[in-house]
This record gives sequence, structure tokens and C-alpha cells, in this order.
Amino acid sequence: MRNTLSILVANEPGELSRIVGLFSARGYNIETISVGKTLEEGWSRCTIVTEGDDAVIDQILKQCIRLARVREAKSVTSLPHIEREMALIDVSARTPDNRSEIKNLVDIFRAKIVDITHDRLIIEASGNKEKVDRFIGLLEPFGMNEIVRTGYVAINTLGSAAARTMAGDSTS
Amino acid sequence: MRNTLSILVANEPGELSRIVGLFSARGYNIETISVGKTLEEGWSRCTIVTEGDDAVIDQILKQCIRLARVREAKSVTSLPHIEREMALIDVSARTPDNRSEIKNLVDIFRAKIVDITHDRLIIEASGNKEKVDRFIGLLEPFGMNEIVRTGYVAINTLGSAAARTMAGDSTS
Repeated sequence: MRNTLSILVANEPGELSRIVGLFSARGYNIETISVGKTLEEGWSRCTIVTEGDDAVIDQILKQCIRLARVREAKSVTSLPHIEREMALIDVSARTPDNRSEIKNLVDIFRAKIVDITHDRLIIEASGNKEKVDRFIGLLEPFGMNEIVRTGYVAINTLGSAAARTMAGDSTS
Repeated sequence: MRNTLSILVANEPGELSRIVGLFSARGYNIETISVGKTLEEGWSRCTIVTEGDDAVIDQILKQCIRLARVREAKSVTSLPHIEREMALIDVSARTPDNRSEIKNLVDIFRAKIVDITHDRLIIEASGNKEKVDRFIGLLEPFGMNEIVRTGYVAINTLGSAAARTMAGDSTS
């Protein structure tokens, strides 16, 4: 099963390495990972998407929380949640027609054009997995030069139990 | 110096662990990391932001490219580039006035409200570091419940040499 895990970890050398190692030690592949700052200086939130058996994921989370510098480790996917990613897309636009077609797609998907030359565009797009995949699929025929995608980030929706007990709650 | 590195790596168990290990072995902290899918099945692009001496970073990149399953490892920051991140922000909105003030900020920053209850909102915001930091700073007085940020992703601008020699180019 696809699992999205959220881990609060100290922003120190070696910490991330230890977490990532828990997955590789079991032969578990990390599909995407995203580590960003939190409001609290010195702490980062790490979102990991992985495929795997629920019991093993649970074991990994338990080992995570035992690491000295991890304060929270939970599965986001066990409760209703919102998952998003962002992509920077370098796409060819060789003719004025191409450019205007791409501009229309950008407007429909509420994306943004962030750089332009006479034959290429860089687009910033965000949304859930399906939306970003679909947008990229529609741009592909124009010719893709490069795509850089963030890993997914996820947050429990406001109605869910995890959101209600957010403060101080630790394991999943 | 702050460096943003872009690494194309096979999406297999253990690969990410090896890359992350190159940094922790030198006591180098990874400020943010983002690993997302590419157009090519089985390959991921990993964007790492780290502070460090340029010579050591260069050494890490050279070791990266020597790993069996790494096909490209470059510094994006050595050339003009665009850097972006995304955040999911769970903010309190206790009164109708609060809600309408937040809605105004969301419109100004071209962010999106993705979930709402009677006293809270979840907002999706993207942009460069300064923009996302400023947006979060303006929301803080309302009361933050949770923030999940992706790591940064970066792409060289279209006028830069790296963009012109993109295809097949490997090390930085």
C-alpha cells in the first residue's frame, strides 16, 4: 500500500541519513521525499511516500520515533488528508500558436509562467498528484526539456482526528 | 556558501541513502531535500540545499557522479536559476474578520485555500523562499497550527549555459 509519512526531525547532520537508512535497510524504496523548514528553528518536517506493507511501515515509524532527534513520526494516509506537490517544467514553445496553446493550459491549471525565451517556457505548477501528472501529460507533445518535481507534502484535513489532536501528539 | 544541487538518481532502495550519506560523512547538513519523479520511469531528480565550502561541495558532486546509479550531479546555483518551494499551511481563522483578512492575503500572494472549517483554513502557497517566508510571516499573528513545506526545487533559467547544453550534459 502507498503510505505517506510525516516525521519531525532535528535539522542536524546525520539525522536524515538515519531515517532514510531505516527504509533502505528493509529494501523499502522511498518514492518521494521532501524535507522543509518548520516554524521552529532547528526542526524540519520530512514527508516520505513509500509503498509497503502496513505492518512494516508501522515498525519503521516506531523505530523513527526512537531516534534521539525525532519528535514525531506518523502516517498521514491513515486519515483524510490533502497531498500536494509542485513542479518546474521547461517546455518548448517553437511557434506563436504553441505559446498561446500552452498559455491557455497554464491558465486552466492555475499554473504560472516564470521564465520565457523565444522558443521555451518555464512553468511552475502545483496540485495533487493527478493534476500535476495530467498537466505534464498535456504539455508533453510540445517537447519537454526538463522537469523538476518536489516530493509530495501532506497534511491531515481539518475534520480529521489527527488535526484535532495536533498539539503534542506524537506517534501514529 | 548556500548551494543548491541537482542530482539525477535511479529510484531504487539504498540510492538516496548513499547520496545523503556523502553529506553527513563530512558533517554537512542538508537544509532541504526534495526528491521527485522525472519523465523517465525509474529515475528521480533530487534537489539538495546545503551550506558549505565550494571546494567540498565540488568534491561531493564528483563522488555522487561516481555512484553507480547516479547519472547527473550539478550545482544549479553556479548559474542563473529559478528556485521555488511549496507550503501547506494550517492557520486559525476564529472570526469572520480574520477569515476575510486571510482571504485577502491569499489573493495577493496568489495562494489557494484548500480546506476550511468554522475556525481554521488550510492554504497552499508556492513561490521563492522570500515570498513563502513573507506570506507565512503575515499569517503568523492569526495562529499557526501546522506548516508542511516541500524542499526547494531549482532549474537553470533559459538564458543560462546549463539550459542550452541540457541534453546529455552530466557533471557541473
